[in-house]
Amino acid sequence: MDLTDLTEDDLQAIQFELEDYQIVHGSLFKIPRTAPDLDDPTVAIARPVGISLIPTAFPHLQFLHALKIQPIFNELYIKIAEDELWLEGIIRQLQETDPFAKVLWQIWERVRSRAEVQSVRCGIFRSDYMLHSIRNEAKVTVGQESLGMAAGAQIKQVEFNTYSCAGSSHANIVANMHRYLGTRGAHRVARIQPAKLPTNHAIKEIAASLETAHKVYTQSTETPRKTVILMTVQPENVNVCDERPLEYSLSDCDPPIPLYRVEFSNEVMQRCQLGPDRELLFTSPHRGEVFEVSVVYQRAGYDPGEYTPQGIEARYILEVSRAIKCPTILCHISGFKKVQQELTRPGVLERFMSAENADVLRRTFMSLYAFDTSGDGVTARKLALDENSAAGYILKPSLDGGGHNIYGRDIPSFLATIPQHVWGKYILMEKINAPLLQGVLVSPLMAYRGSVVSELGAIGTCLWRREGGSKGDTEIIRNSGAGWTFKTKPDDVDEMSVVKGYGCFDCPFFPDVSSDNLQG
Amino acid sequence: MDLTDLTEDDLQAIQFELEDYQIVHGSLFKIPRTAPDLDDPTVAIARPVGISLIPTAFPHLQFLHALKIQPIFNELYIKIAEDELWLEGIIRQLQETDPFAKVLWQIWERVRSRAEVQSVRCGIFRSDYMLHSIRNEAKVTVGQESLGMAAGAQIKQVEFNTYSCAGSSHANIVANMHRYLGTRGAHRVARIQPAKLPTNHAIKEIAASLETAHKVYTQSTETPRKTVILMTVQPENVNVCDERPLEYSLSDCDPPIPLYRVEFSNEVMQRCQLGPDRELLFTSPHRGEVFEVSVVYQRAGYDPGEYTPQGIEARYILEVSRAIKCPTILCHISGFKKVQQELTRPGVLERFMSAENADVLRRTFMSLYAFDTSGDGVTARKLALDENSAAGYILKPSLDGGGHNIYGRDIPSFLATIPQHVWGKYILMEKINAPLLQGVLVSPLMAYRGSVVSELGAIGTCLWRREGGSKGDTEIIRNSGAGWTFKTKPDDVDEMSVVKGYGCFDCPFFPDVSSDNLQG
Repeated sequence: MDLTDLTEDDLQAIQFELEDYQIVHGSLFKIPRTAPDLDDPTVAIARPVGISLIPTAFPHLQFLHALKIQPIFNELYIKIAEDELWLEGIIRQLQETDPFAKVLWQIWERVRSRAEVQSVRCGIFRSDYMLHSIRNEAKVTVGQESLGMAAGAQIKQVEFNTYSCAGSSHANIVANMHRYLGTRGAHRVARIQPAKLPTNHAIKEIAASLETAHKVYTQSTETPRKTVILMTVQPENVNVCDERPLEYSLSDCDPPIPLYRVEFSNEVMQRCQLGPDRELLFTSPHRGEVFEVSVVYQRAGYDPGEYTPQGIEARYILEVSRAIKCPTILCHISGFKKVQQELTRPGVLERFMSAENADVLRRTFMSLYAFDTSGDGVTARKLALDENSAAGYILKPSLDGGGHNIYGRDIPSFLATIPQHVWGKYILMEKINAPLLQGVLVSPLMAYRGSVVSELGAIGTCLWRREGGSKGDTEIIRNSGAGWTFKTKPDDVDEMSVVKGYGCFDCPFFPDVSSDNLQG
Repeated sequence: MDLTDLTEDDLQAIQFELEDYQIVHGSLFKIPRTAPDLDDPTVAIARPVGISLIPTAFPHLQFLHALKIQPIFNELYIKIAEDELWLEGIIRQLQETDPFAKVLWQIWERVRSRAEVQSVRCGIFRSDYMLHSIRNEAKVTVGQESLGMAAGAQIKQVEFNTYSCAGSSHANIVANMHRYLGTRGAHRVARIQPAKLPTNHAIKEIAASLETAHKVYTQSTETPRKTVILMTVQPENVNVCDERPLEYSLSDCDPPIPLYRVEFSNEVMQRCQLGPDRELLFTSPHRGEVFEVSVVYQRAGYDPGEYTPQGIEARYILEVSRAIKCPTILCHISGFKKVQQELTRPGVLERFMSAENADVLRRTFMSLYAFDTSGDGVTARKLALDENSAAGYILKPSLDGGGHNIYGRDIPSFLATIPQHVWGKYILMEKINAPLLQGVLVSPLMAYRGSVVSELGAIGTCLWRREGGSKGDTEIIRNSGAGWTFKTKPDDVDEMSVVKGYGCFDCPFFPDVSSDNLQG
């Protein structure tokens, strides 16, 4: 495909269709009523999320591979989350320099001191990848038609998310949208056949995993109360269109499963309390009906700033309760970059899995370095302090999720601004050398046409039971893939942030495939 | 129900849920990119349509009655639309004073002079009603619980729409929304049980009627071309969320039925042309694929201002083509207020139906008067020119659809501003004396709590075949109800305009019913 063929009229015609599709299907950001730039305070407004106008090419086999290995990654993180001793070793290194790690661990210690009353845990994970050109080339722009043949490009893991994974609903809707447009000939100009776009059922799959967790809870209790799933959310939330579809999908279950939202942490403190057997009791905002919470699905509590004294207490109440946590605090910590980095050290993966599986996962790893005073760390610091070698790396704080990263040549000057004794909370990651493709993106921030880079997220869901305390076995009740996310940004922007308007939801297009077997 | 029980907190909790539901489900107005108040021209924004926070009471039997008689109304308007001689008599009275009636009739005469090549017609109608308190009382506010017992309130027809009926998708979504909220206890504060709210399948039903028309067309032709439905729309359209769901619903047919939008009238002229057998050929905006149009679904062309010389030509091309029109120009004219008024004259309904059916429909009529120089008209003019008697009437221009009305005491001063020789294009209608209920409404314009008045629209769809020219028989292929709309406005606002922010989509609540048999 050669996007230089596309005229402005072609793009206008496509955007006109996309924009309406987004508005009708909730592919939107909500701009809350209290946002200061609104003339009219009585209602919210909404605007389309950033999207690609044309699906961006991606090699089919690499796409399939990411989905295929997701259950192995799920199992790895289940095991890490239950390996308290190993995690404690990691945290011990981290908590001197990283107050957030310390706060979470202290909450866990309080929970542990009272002993857990819920042995079932739920996980909704997302493993993010970019294509890496292993040929030792500088950045190259490749024709999309020939991408499939570029055997040199392989998926490499950007990060593994265990907490509050976002984007699945948006990705689902945008995948539907591009398929819909494809069937209407809107992509004909780019010679993209709709049969070469994958389907995505992320909303249904994630809702199904919450449904399973809910049923496991209700079957194990004889409570007379009505049970509901509780989703923690941040106040002034712009991303309701990513969260709410899960709630609405659960209401289509038979019988419907109610999901209520609760703002972290104010509303958690107002509406949640522990029952006599540590049931998590939730008082509805609609005149005080009291429900018992089966599953706490965390979509807030990932930002260190949320852990005020009240935030700490709110998280503690949720964690110590009988509700199934999605995820537990130990699983949350397992998503830290420091864990990701430790897993790249020789032999560490083998602690959790067969050598064969370890080999499969390791092939997706870039080089990661501790940034402490160990031998490894000293090497990393040397790489990072030199502007030329730093260009090939990214400095990441050991949070879960994206953001807050320092890229390439910015690293040395950044390091000069922070005291050396906190450097240990960072890790250094080799930059992925993504092949550049041509793309067309539109977001509230920009209309862009040029070189782009995509990120594929493989979503996984799992449910497991830990028997017999910290030394017991782990029984996996459910472990499956659950669709995908696919985001694309201009090549010259470092961060894939959809909220900030650079990252755009997209759908992969497989130039290298016949139309069979495209289920995602 | 006594809404004075509701606290601001109760309402906030409900609105918070509704607002997100609206954003996720496209219960929105689009604010187009070219609107001058947008900082950022690259993307559109959207805002929730006006809605009720609490479903408003309506007597169940009156609701059912409106749905039940819709097929009788459908058949009446089918017969009117095929009774060219009778219609011509009406138009003859009107065209001297009403340029729009003249323009439409002239287009029809051009079509007639070439003879029609399509004998099948499609109709999507909506009959609008308000409750009328037949007891001779001044305005009364009634308790919603007792409304069901108020046997005095009956539905009276506001108008009958044959052209470009809007609001069905919004009504469908808002009905779903209130039922969803009801199941979550959000209406508990108002003691509204979700089982006492009707379902609404307007989107599916209307799409099904277009599907039937499409299939009748394709089965009667051996065209090698791909066939599509064409929807005419106005430029800078804010109501895409009402129109697009029909398109998306048609794409779920098996096989999918493509629907393309075309702006009236610029784009009609650019993209539509007649084939050798008067097929309507449509050139897709996506690099020029050419389709044959099976059905022209009119969602534009209702405003006299659209009939520039180009607009007249565009309408003519559509009308004269082989495509099935939804509706034809004669059916369009049948929706004029002048026709509605003529139908109230003694014996006129009996021209089209049995005395029994005529009696059923007539019971829904208010008094309507011609406003011409006939005896009837002279009586009407006397009523309208006196401020006191005018208070009980509405002066309506003989357009299809709502808007442009003059209410009550404003009529005499309005009449003083227009020359008497054009008065004949108006009709005078007795005001409906609606019982007042308590309601809570939120729109981009207002947050309102107080006395409200609702309007119920019964949607009907039909497909018929006219055999043997203007003297032939009419074969009805399909005639059925297709859901409903329900809008509510503050009592002290005259016009039920959702776009202007006064009318709000709502869902009726039946205080007087057990939970059985609530299908709408």
